[in-house]
Amino acid sequence: MTPFKLTDELLAEIEQLIENQKNADLKALLEEVHYADIAEIANELDEEEATYLIKLLDSDKTSDILTEVDEDVREAILSNLSSKEIAEELGELDTDDAADIVGELPKEIVQEVISEIEDREHAKDIVDLLRYDENSAGGLMAKELVKVNENWNVLTCVKEMRAQAENVTRVHSIYVVDNEERLKGRLSLKDLLTTSTTTHIKDVYISNVDWVNVNEKPEEVAKIMSKYDLEAIPVIDEVGRLVGRITIDDIVDVIKEEAEKDYQMAAGISQDVEADDSIWDLTRARLPWLFLGLVGGVGAAAIMGGFEAMISKHAILFFFTPLIAAMAGNVGVQSSAIIVQGLANDDLKGSVGNRLIKEMLLALLNGVILAAILLLFTWFWKGEFLVALAISISLIAVILVAGFIGTFIPLFLHKRGIDPAIATGPFITTSNDIFGILIYFSIAKIVLGI
Amino acid sequence: MTPFKLTDELLAEIEQLIENQKNADLKALLEEVHYADIAEIANELDEEEATYLIKLLDSDKTSDILTEVDEDVREAILSNLSSKEIAEELGELDTDDAADIVGELPKEIVQEVISEIEDREHAKDIVDLLRYDENSAGGLMAKELVKVNENWNVLTCVKEMRAQAENVTRVHSIYVVDNEERLKGRLSLKDLLTTSTTTHIKDVYISNVDWVNVNEKPEEVAKIMSKYDLEAIPVIDEVGRLVGRITIDDIVDVIKEEAEKDYQMAAGISQDVEADDSIWDLTRARLPWLFLGLVGGVGAAAIMGGFEAMISKHAILFFFTPLIAAMAGNVGVQSSAIIVQGLANDDLKGSVGNRLIKEMLLALLNGVILAAILLLFTWFWKGEFLVALAISISLIAVILVAGFIGTFIPLFLHKRGIDPAIATGPFITTSNDIFGILIYFSIAKIVLGI
Repeated sequence: MTPFKLTDELLAEIEQLIENQKNADLKALLEEVHYADIAEIANELDEEEATYLIKLLDSDKTSDILTEVDEDVREAILSNLSSKEIAEELGELDTDDAADIVGELPKEIVQEVISEIEDREHAKDIVDLLRYDENSAGGLMAKELVKVNENWNVLTCVKEMRAQAENVTRVHSIYVVDNEERLKGRLSLKDLLTTSTTTHIKDVYISNVDWVNVNEKPEEVAKIMSKYDLEAIPVIDEVGRLVGRITIDDIVDVIKEEAEKDYQMAAGISQDVEADDSIWDLTRARLPWLFLGLVGGVGAAAIMGGFEAMISKHAILFFFTPLIAAMAGNVGVQSSAIIVQGLANDDLKGSVGNRLIKEMLLALLNGVILAAILLLFTWFWKGEFLVALAISISLIAVILVAGFIGTFIPLFLHKRGIDPAIATGPFITTSNDIFGILIYFSIAKIVLGI
Repeated sequence: MTPFKLTDELLAEIEQLIENQKNADLKALLEEVHYADIAEIANELDEEEATYLIKLLDSDKTSDILTEVDEDVREAILSNLSSKEIAEELGELDTDDAADIVGELPKEIVQEVISEIEDREHAKDIVDLLRYDENSAGGLMAKELVKVNENWNVLTCVKEMRAQAENVTRVHSIYVVDNEERLKGRLSLKDLLTTSTTTHIKDVYISNVDWVNVNEKPEEVAKIMSKYDLEAIPVIDEVGRLVGRITIDDIVDVIKEEAEKDYQMAAGISQDVEADDSIWDLTRARLPWLFLGLVGGVGAAAIMGGFEAMISKHAILFFFTPLIAAMAGNVGVQSSAIIVQGLANDDLKGSVGNRLIKEMLLALLNGVILAAILLLFTWFWKGEFLVALAISISLIAVILVAGFIGTFIPLFLHKRGIDPAIATGPFITTSNDIFGILIYFSIAKIVLGI
């Protein structure tokens, strides 16, 4: 397919059409455009224009557009719609998307909006979903699924399924439950196509079915679904009843968000921000980490102040502090990133002790190679072998300590139930800067005998 | 489901059973274990043990295990199997997974393995897939799909489909082609369930179908599928013929790999390595970036050497170099990470000029806040207002420049068709260290009038 590209010309044309209220032209222009692309357009329009567009187009399309636009755009549009109009949009959506939108509505209008939803079953399902923590399998799941009773035969099953399938966009598996709604197993559409109509479901279903508990964390659900290559997974409650279904498209979003969060954390950005957010939002996400760096820098300055006496004889030592600090930071970030990624993928095997020993060996190997290069360079540059030696020995020590901290801290945080990704960015750089400089000057002092 | 946990006890038990050749016990123990979990076990076994396990279990399970184990484990196991045994495993796999494995086999045995595959159609499909670049939609797609001719009626269609579906694990969409195999549209299973059997496909199919070209990059396919919430997408060749299908589970892997690559790049790790790789592999991935940092540090030392004359009167300036370098690095990484992520998600709007102006304003805001704090602190600490002022003004300037570089470099690389993620880690930190220190001492020199 030719990918959709939002050009300035297209945007200008749409704004022009809205201004002149050329409804027929607008509809014709957007007829063939996918809702995800119209959402991109809506993100660029102002509040009135976006609302105009939503009111103009059919609600089966606009409801999907609403789920795709940025949160602030959605909030603005919804504030311009009546409760009845919002209810119409919700009526078109799957329960999970509808519940997400209801969750964002101002408290005082929720009741009214829900009461305006025509399909009462749909409204009940949405209300059910509101009870679950956003950060759990219950918060991710939808109520739309196809389920059959184990006591039915294939014919009844096909009839019931046709009715249920009307409300389900994508049928992945047919879930089999007992009379108490407890999940017993599954059937594939394929099996159903190839089995005699009088067979009882009880005799053909597959009892080996994967499921997650309603309280499971989204990251865990994502791990399970991607490890076992599942496209949908049923969700059961504390007594084993089938309460919903999570599909892979929601999990793709979870995986992307997790990855982005870890990436931002490693880069010293503490909230989920995008390049297009306001300067104020971006500052709030970035300034705390920079402040941490400032405190670390002041700490480093204070340590160097303590070694001021060395400056007259060995000024060169002070020239190499940025190098020592940078190496400590780099090694720390490398070590911690590997550990954080291993933890995220659940593929760290063996004990913490072995892990640390391996990292120490690795740091030693890297440290010795780099120190040898630095030794030769400094020696030739300044001609003072002892100073060059002091700097090089310090470099090895600093790399060893940085590797240790970078490995140990995320493992420790993980053990304590804290997200180890926090240990990757400025946090590890800053602490390694301080430790690095302290070790550097201490060793230099010993080697040079000052 | 209770997640599978690979314990040391389980591993010891399995090794014991293998050693004593207790085949029945082994089979019973692993009967209910998912292939992805057995792959985890195989990763921990030695070559002989893993091979033993693969030879013991049924090939419908072992073929899936082979696709899931680490590449080096797979290579070791396959080297112990005969061409006939390998062919049997390939016969059980979907064509995309089979082609991936064939691609890893030693050149000299490929021909023989292929000739041993019993299902000749399957063998032909695998050979077809080998032609495509690994890093393209063609390299990701499988030949398994369900397609019907637009001239058939629903009844023929259902009959044909039953036959085709035997070979397709998951039927997502039924693709409609013309007599020349060109993709015309799609049908959903649901539509088929609810349409009269004499209707012609031509009259019911949906012509609005998403597709990708066989040469499309995997990242682009991932973007399209996740943006449009697709679970499968057909792949067409240069003349519009339907040649394969990509499913969401493969795309989940692409998304995860992309995220991991960017994350590692930001952390200064240049190859795709895992915590459990050898020290040598890890060193090769990490040492080049550390060497870059070393060169940067030496550059910084040389710059400071050029300002050595200032050291006697204003030693304190030298104490703050790690702070300046750290702030330059942090701001650079923050700016570049935001841009890299925006580029990856395709949500950077507006011109490069506006982007730079915004980052400059952001840097100015952060810089002024941090500089004010630093000014007060340094002034009280050392009592020299002019020195404190020099350091603070430099900090603002350094943050501005770092923000500019961090924003500009990834945008520039992207324009040039180079992966901007390369600009995030040590690359930006190192260059910002050097620029930062140069700017710092230059400004200090002017302010202090030395």
